[in-house]
Amino acid sequence: MSERRYTLTISCPDRTGIIAAVSEFVARHRGWIVEASYHTDQETQRFFMRQEIRADSLPFEPDEFHAQFSGLAAEFNMDWRISDSARKKRLVVFASKEAHCLDDLLYRWRSGELHAEIPCVISNHDDLRGFVEWHGIPFHRLDFSDKAAAFAQAADLFEQQRGDAMVLARFMQILPPELCRRYAGRIINIHHSFLPSFAGAKPYHQAYQRGVKLIGATCHYVTEDLDAGPIIEQDTVRIDHGDTVKDMVRYGRDIEKTVLARGLRYHVEDRVLLCGNKTVVFR
Amino acid sequence: MSERRYTLTISCPDRTGIIAAVSEFVARHRGWIVEASYHTDQETQRFFMRQEIRADSLPFEPDEFHAQFSGLAAEFNMDWRISDSARKKRLVVFASKEAHCLDDLLYRWRSGELHAEIPCVISNHDDLRGFVEWHGIPFHRLDFSDKAAAFAQAADLFEQQRGDAMVLARFMQILPPELCRRYAGRIINIHHSFLPSFAGAKPYHQAYQRGVKLIGATCHYVTEDLDAGPIIEQDTVRIDHGDTVKDMVRYGRDIEKTVLARGLRYHVEDRVLLCGNKTVVFR
Amino acid sequence: MSERRYTLTISCPDRTGIIAAVSEFVARHRGWIVEASYHTDQETQRFFMRQEIRADSLPFEPDEFHAQFSGLAAEFNMDWRISDSARKKRLVVFASKEAHCLDDLLYRWRSGELHAEIPCVISNHDDLRGFVEWHGIPFHRLDFSDKAAAFAQAADLFEQQRGDAMVLARFMQILPPELCRRYAGRIINIHHSFLPSFAGAKPYHQAYQRGVKLIGATCHYVTEDLDAGPIIEQDTVRIDHGDTVKDMVRYGRDIEKTVLARGLRYHVEDRVLLCGNKTVVFR
Amino acid sequence: MSERRYTLTISCPDRTGIIAAVSEFVARHRGWIVEASYHTDQETQRFFMRQEIRADSLPFEPDEFHAQFSGLAAEFNMDWRISDSARKKRLVVFASKEAHCLDDLLYRWRSGELHAEIPCVISNHDDLRGFVEWHGIPFHRLDFSDKAAAFAQAADLFEQQRGDAMVLARFMQILPPELCRRYAGRIINIHHSFLPSFAGAKPYHQAYQRGVKLIGATCHYVTEDLDAGPIIEQDTVRIDHGDTVKDMVRYGRDIEKTVLARGLRYHVEDRVLLCGNKTVVFR
Repeated sequence: MSERRYTLTISCPDRTGIIAAVSEFVARHRGWIVEASYHTDQETQRFFMRQEIRADSLPFEPDEFHAQFSGLAAEFNMDWRISDSARKKRLVVFASKEAHCLDDLLYRWRSGELHAEIPCVISNHDDLRGFVEWHGIPFHRLDFSDKAAAFAQAADLFEQQRGDAMVLARFMQILPPELCRRYAGRIINIHHSFLPSFAGAKPYHQAYQRGVKLIGATCHYVTEDLDAGPIIEQDTVRIDHGDTVKDMVRYGRDIEKTVLARGLRYHVEDRVLLCGNKTVVFR
Repeated sequence: MSERRYTLTISCPDRTGIIAAVSEFVARHRGWIVEASYHTDQETQRFFMRQEIRADSLPFEPDEFHAQFSGLAAEFNMDWRISDSARKKRLVVFASKEAHCLDDLLYRWRSGELHAEIPCVISNHDDLRGFVEWHGIPFHRLDFSDKAAAFAQAADLFEQQRGDAMVLARFMQILPPELCRRYAGRIINIHHSFLPSFAGAKPYHQAYQRGVKLIGATCHYVTEDLDAGPIIEQDTVRIDHGDTVKDMVRYGRDIEKTVLARGLRYHVEDRVLLCGNKTVVFR
Repeated sequence: MSERRYTLTISCPDRTGIIAAVSEFVARHRGWIVEASYHTDQETQRFFMRQEIRADSLPFEPDEFHAQFSGLAAEFNMDWRISDSARKKRLVVFASKEAHCLDDLLYRWRSGELHAEIPCVISNHDDLRGFVEWHGIPFHRLDFSDKAAAFAQAADLFEQQRGDAMVLARFMQILPPELCRRYAGRIINIHHSFLPSFAGAKPYHQAYQRGVKLIGATCHYVTEDLDAGPIIEQDTVRIDHGDTVKDMVRYGRDIEKTVLARGLRYHVEDRVLLCGNKTVVFR
Repeated sequence: MSERRYTLTISCPDRTGIIAAVSEFVARHRGWIVEASYHTDQETQRFFMRQEIRADSLPFEPDEFHAQFSGLAAEFNMDWRISDSARKKRLVVFASKEAHCLDDLLYRWRSGELHAEIPCVISNHDDLRGFVEWHGIPFHRLDFSDKAAAFAQAADLFEQQRGDAMVLARFMQILPPELCRRYAGRIINIHHSFLPSFAGAKPYHQAYQRGVKLIGATCHYVTEDLDAGPIIEQDTVRIDHGDTVKDMVRYGRDIEKTVLARGLRYHVEDRVLLCGNKTVVFR
């Protein structure tokens, strides 16, 4: 993604002519489509699309695009958005004591693989401060003994930093329902099980007790229902009878960070569209 | 497994000296160990082992082995068994209308890959009769409108045929608790989800509703608790938003048959030992 | 695929306006696009697309579609094709002694999962005759001691049967270069390794000697260069030091048949477009 | 691995009575075997075993174990070793400019997951110095414009640090044959392809050209033959026609670091035994 691109994402009721109308609009302005994906949800008969267009091929900036496209969008009753790769998304990361997801994220940020900014990290512990600050990223430890106050502070920081999304990188604290509602579709969590199996606390212990032969991880949007929000990405890894809970935790870390990284990339690149409690992911 | 082998499986309370005692017994009789596996369950401190020994290296038949080994077994309070590859296990297969698992099983039987005999197939429908009978295997359609009577008949057939295990190859009928108890550890089912997710009816519909990104299959021993018995083998396959329930059913068939085939092979080769509601699988 | 569909596949030099022009054509005739996929090859700057359209939404039959679309196709210098789901592709299957791929294929055909016809099976041995004929499919054993004559006969049968593709289901004979050229892009082979590793004879023996930790299978179009044609689909499975060549053969069968089935489905559903010696697969 | 353990690894010509003799030795000294694995290589008829024994269950230190066991070892013509978990292996890491493998390794070291010491990092560039030194690990940049001198210096550092193994974490320099011979079985490399496919330079470019549908990574011991040494661990990940070389590099990083981490763990825990140009890996 070195060249500047606009990404147009749309969802609307399905009917004939949508692709034609949008493509005609882009073509009329000589837009060069680099990537195009479409999907119709059979149950809801809702149509989803995503187009990446080279910014230099279009005669306008995002604001102008917005103005020009509005008529067509209204005609098809579209829920739509245009994003600009030149404006990186701002991710406020929440972490606790476990370093693996945060480390992985910071590596991807540092190397430029994660096309986003990390204005700050928020935590309930000081364990990861040194590592975060070495990256030149501000680290805020909040006192979660008063949960309401701490989350209010966290939300303030998020607003001050003009955050686009909250990333819960093994944060281990349950967010207040009000926050989940306010930032719906903008809070991303990594859960250390293959949901819907083993929601809630200590999923590896639950997996050990049940004697499953694979364990997993799930990246999902946070909603008021614990571990029940729209799933963005999942993966599993094989274990066997010889693996203790401690072994599972170790294997699990590797898929947790990979699954979070993939889910986050899809979100950052506007590849995820919500469809009720499910996601359309245009990889 | 062309050469004849004895397979010795043991579980007992853990302590020092078990491997030494058993190995010494085998060595004293000049037994040639071809494969050896050990495991200690940390929670229960129970020890599990499996040894495959070349039959021609030992001076005795299984009965004599049994007699000779009993003293040592008693000393260590062993739960143990010796099986002989020259005596193939007898699998009574239960099927319904769906052909994929049964077909796969019959291919493996026909080609000699599945080291077992299939004395008969029992079904609640006639759909698969032609295919089964082409293999020269008797096909019994039972009338499950009276479930109690039908299962009584099925159990009679199983006994008449000196069955070692019942294989539910997408049989889609819930077995009476009494049968589950009587043949505990001898009834093998394939469930079309990654348990414990989506137990019970219509797992692909459940998976579709939840919006998971992987679907799975589980081979397990049947107990009185529906889809909650000890898991032998599982696997998953990636799907995405474009996949309908019908697509999932199609993908699912491929892992169902593979997972059942693997689980069945482990059972047939005495690689599965029960440890409470879990399994030790010496692959 | 119960409802009738037309599938339009196109490849042409990339430029702006292609999607718009095609979508406008479809929309003008009130065509309902069910699935749409696009790709631009960066190296060759060639554009590829595939659209599935509901047949009942269009006012014309395939011939008429062809006539109407030709002008636009010429304008963009398109290499294109329209196919009709009501006309099943005809697959002539070549097999030898190994049953697993053929069995799997016939199950998928019998159950309706494989949306194709199998007018006949051609073999150099009689081993699989009974199984094929039970399906009501003609079985032709040809004498490959004279390879040239046998392949001439095979080509005649293919032509007589108006075959669309030849499927080499572990056929184990090398096709004459002339045949490879004549039916380029229409001969599908399953090779029992993860190509380009272990091309040629006895790939499992080669894999065993090299000590790899995964083995694989590859479905590809046949070209004059042995095992070097465009790859359609591949997969791998984990093995370990305990696995003999015989074990690899057994594991391998399971991925061979799955990989062949997937590749074949992509081909039958016009999801595979050739791009030099590579494929674009719109799954 | 919190409790102290001795790990006994043995390879010797196969015959009856080996397991019995070793187990009897351990049992006689009241050793508590925590993990035990065995394998016979069919081709060479060589036997391999590994036993983990609780150190506190034995009456002796490693030196004394060595002395006591020597007689038995000689009798069976064993190639054997006893290692002590209280003495961590010392890994000298070689890196270049690419951070992902080194970062991952340092995370695992820092978190205690990798049971080893890293006395220093050697590099031909300064890019990773800051990150390494933040961990308190000495960083040596050597001038590889004179390769012979640089490798001589590297070997000196390795000896000074009493290194147990050299880890090439995407080092991108070919080691002199003499070094490969001197430290045979002690130099571990990660190659960014599924060997034997795409050995040598630019494997992702090679994979892109060939149009494979999966890419992979291989962790192996370095020998004089480039990328042809004994394979310890491999894995693959799915790609498709939409993925550029740059995408492959990105996906590849994730499997490279996972495969290296797994291979390294097996090495560090004495789970890898050499069998000609292959490995036995007791996972």
